[in-house]
Formats: sequence, structure tokens, C-alpha cells
Amino acid sequence: METLSKNKIKWIRSLHLKKNRDSENCFIVEGEKMVAEILKEQIERVVCYVSTEPKSTNLRDTYLCDEKSMSQISQLKTASTHLVVVRKPTLTVSNPKVTLVVDGVQDPGNMGTIIRTADWFGIDNIVCSNETVDVFNPKVIQSTMGSIFRIPITYVDLKTFLSAAKRPVYGALLDGKPIDTTVFEEDAILVVGNEGKGITAELANKIEHPVLIPGFGAAESLNVSVATGILLYHYRSSLTS
Amino acid sequence: METLSKNKIKWIRSLHLKKNRDSENCFIVEGEKMVAEILKEQIERVVCYVSTEPKSTNLRDTYLCDEKSMSQISQLKTASTHLVVVRKPTLTVSNPKVTLVVDGVQDPGNMGTIIRTADWFGIDNIVCSNETVDVFNPKVIQSTMGSIFRIPITYVDLKTFLSAAKRPVYGALLDGKPIDTTVFEEDAILVVGNEGKGITAELANKIEHPVLIPGFGAAESLNVSVATGILLYHYRSSLTS
Repeated sequence: METLSKNKIKWIRSLHLKKNRDSENCFIVEGEKMVAEILKEQIERVVCYVSTEPKSTNLRDTYLCDEKSMSQISQLKTASTHLVVVRKPTLTVSNPKVTLVVDGVQDPGNMGTIIRTADWFGIDNIVCSNETVDVFNPKVIQSTMGSIFRIPITYVDLKTFLSAAKRPVYGALLDGKPIDTTVFEEDAILVVGNEGKGITAELANKIEHPVLIPGFGAAESLNVSVATGILLYHYRSSLTS
Repeated sequence: METLSKNKIKWIRSLHLKKNRDSENCFIVEGEKMVAEILKEQIERVVCYVSTEPKSTNLRDTYLCDEKSMSQISQLKTASTHLVVVRKPTLTVSNPKVTLVVDGVQDPGNMGTIIRTADWFGIDNIVCSNETVDVFNPKVIQSTMGSIFRIPITYVDLKTFLSAAKRPVYGALLDGKPIDTTVFEEDAILVVGNEGKGITAELANKIEHPVLIPGFGAAESLNVSVATGILLYHYRSSLTS
């Protein structure tokens, strides 16, 4: 049973902040299930701590630490028993067919769910505006359910990116054409916007094919991860029908 | 500026627990935007407190209380400046055409998003298993964005409910038929299951039409509120096509 050194604790705690995750190129994953998943995969890990005797044999190469140390390095209100520091994935894609563009999603849970959904629908890569939440934020990681390690994600200036795009650009906009009558091209860029404000005005004129998810009730809007799910589902099903 | 009486604080705090929300038939809504929405609608409110001078004229009939009192009655880690206690809505529907059945969703954010999505797609009512999270839980309320006041929700024994059902029953199951080739009947019951376990085994044989959302990547599953969104979207679009 190890009590972590002050320096070790300080370094892991520094990763709670985006700027340090960026400079160290590392981030934290917590929770028994998520950590066990990671140890099965070819993911470069820096250090792994557990505060209970590990059940799984996958968990050799881990350090047993005391609960106090764990609560000091944890990003959670109530520390998990498992924490691993991993290298950021270096996933790339050379000629993506279908790209999801995320314009300013702020809520980490929504962003994580969007990444998981994009993975389900076999999206080649995700491109985010610089205003979008950091995908290595712990709550994003939690909601991705491992998909963060399978799909390349980059941050760019979206105005430049969309201006240079050679594929047709579809986006969820309030004045769009009903999505259920839209047939998508397979090579495509699909854009979703911020929770409250949608796609920013200066990008709206880059959306050649605005689409709308028809509503039938009194709700003002859909949650952005639900709307993304419907967009990606319809993209896939319009290709096969 | 009022300092709330001990009894008042005690009563409002008691509503943090489901059993007291049930016996008092009341629940708490917090946040400036949500409270302002409520004061516009015909919703029976019991008492409303604000800890800043209200901007909106809708907020007359409110009591100004000090920040300490507000933090004592709030259910949030960081108290909002607006809190209202309202009567539970008594919404009913006599002959629902389309009903959403929720079998054991546990996460309040997922449940709230499901209610909001059902409202968007004009679902007539929601029926939950008794194991489903309480919809008057503060995190559910937050995620519904007001839809909790527009759609009737009941808790029942689902086995009994589905056994007595006269409408065709569709449900998301892993061995289902691809949903994009399924044409739904308009009078329908649509069933979604728990985040991890899906629809419980003892209900699975009540699902006459199991459907599956086709996956194209490596993700193991979809988030339940995203899956519900796709199910409801496809239900609506298969009717109009």
C-alpha cells in the first residue's frame, strides 16, 4: 500500500486543468470499468493506481495506493477505486468520407455522448471549433464509454475548415428542409451547433444543405446529443435505402 | 429581504426526498430561466423565492430571501438565485395513440432528456416501471426544459400494463429487426430499457416488434436518450413517408 509522493500527487492533480493536459499530452481516466477497458486495449498508459486489491488480472502493472492519496488525485467528488493516466491518443485519418463538425458544444456530458454516437455510426473523424469543450475533460471521457480512443478528434478554426471543404456540407438549422426527405451524399460533412445557440451565424452561410428535425409537440428544441444521433442515423439510413 | 423561518426551510428541504415529494405532492424547480418559464404558465405554485431583485415582472408574487436561506433550501451544489415550489402537474390523457414506455432508466439526465424528446415528437404519454428514476428528481426536472409540465407520466407495473395492451408493442432489443426497414403503426407502444441492461428479460416476450438501431462502428451501445430519440424520430417519419 503506497502513499503517493507529494510530487506525484501534484503532477496528477495538474492534469485536472486543460492547459496541463495539453502540455503533458496526458489525461486521467477513472472508474473500475473504464480502467479495466483501457488495460485491455493498446493504449499507452503512464501510471495506474488502485485503492483496492485488483480483481482482474489485467490490473497487474498497477500500484496499490491508500484511499487518501486516491481522493487527492481524483477529479471526482467521490473518488473511484481505479485511476489511470494515459497518453492522448494519436489517431489520424487520411481521407475521411464522413466528418462530424461540432460547433461550440459546451456541456461535457453532451460532448461525450456525441463522440460515443459518432463511433456507433462509424463516423470517420470529428472536427471541433476552438470554442467546444475539451474532449479530455473528465466528464467527457466518462460519457464517451471508450469511444474517445477510437475516433480522431481535432480542434480547428471552423470558418477556414468549412471554406476549404470539398464535400457537401449538411447542418442542423431552424430554417432547414425536413431531414426525413433529405437524401445525403456518402462523402459528407455534418455540422451540429451549440446547446442554446445552434450553429453560429458566421458559419450558417457555409451550410449548403440545412436540415431540420420535424417536431410534433410543444418542446422548444431537442437536446444536442439527441439531435446529433438523429442526424447520424438518418445519414446512414438514407444511404442504404 | 427575508430570512426564512426554520419551519419553512425544513419543509422545503424535506422535498429533496422522493417520499416527501410524494406525500406533499410538490416539487422544487430551480434556476432563473426555468422559474421564469413556470411563472408564465398556468402551473400551480406554492411559494417562490429569489435571492436577487427580480428583473422580470412575471416575478411579482415572489419573496426576496437572503443568500444563506437560499443555499439551505437549494438542491444544487451552488444555489441558483431563483427557486419555486410547485404542485405536481395533474396531466391526463384519455385515449393515447402513442405511448412511450420507460423500463428502468436510472440516470436523471437521461430521463429528463427522454421526456423532452417525447414532448418534441408529440408522444401522448409516458409510462414508467416502478424501478425508473423519480421524474420529480431535480436533475430530471432540469433536463426536461419544461416538458415535465406538458406530458402525462405515470408509474405502473409494466408486466401488467404490457399484458393488457391492445396496441402493437415495439421495443429496442439487440436481436431486433433493423429499425430503418420497419414501418410503425400509428397507434403504438414504444418501449426503451435501462442504460446498461436494456429491456428486462421478463418483459422482452411482450415486445411483438423488436427493433434494432444498426451500428457501423466499434461502440458497444448507444446512450439511452439518443436511442429513444432515434426510435421516436423513426416512428414519426415512417408514418409520413
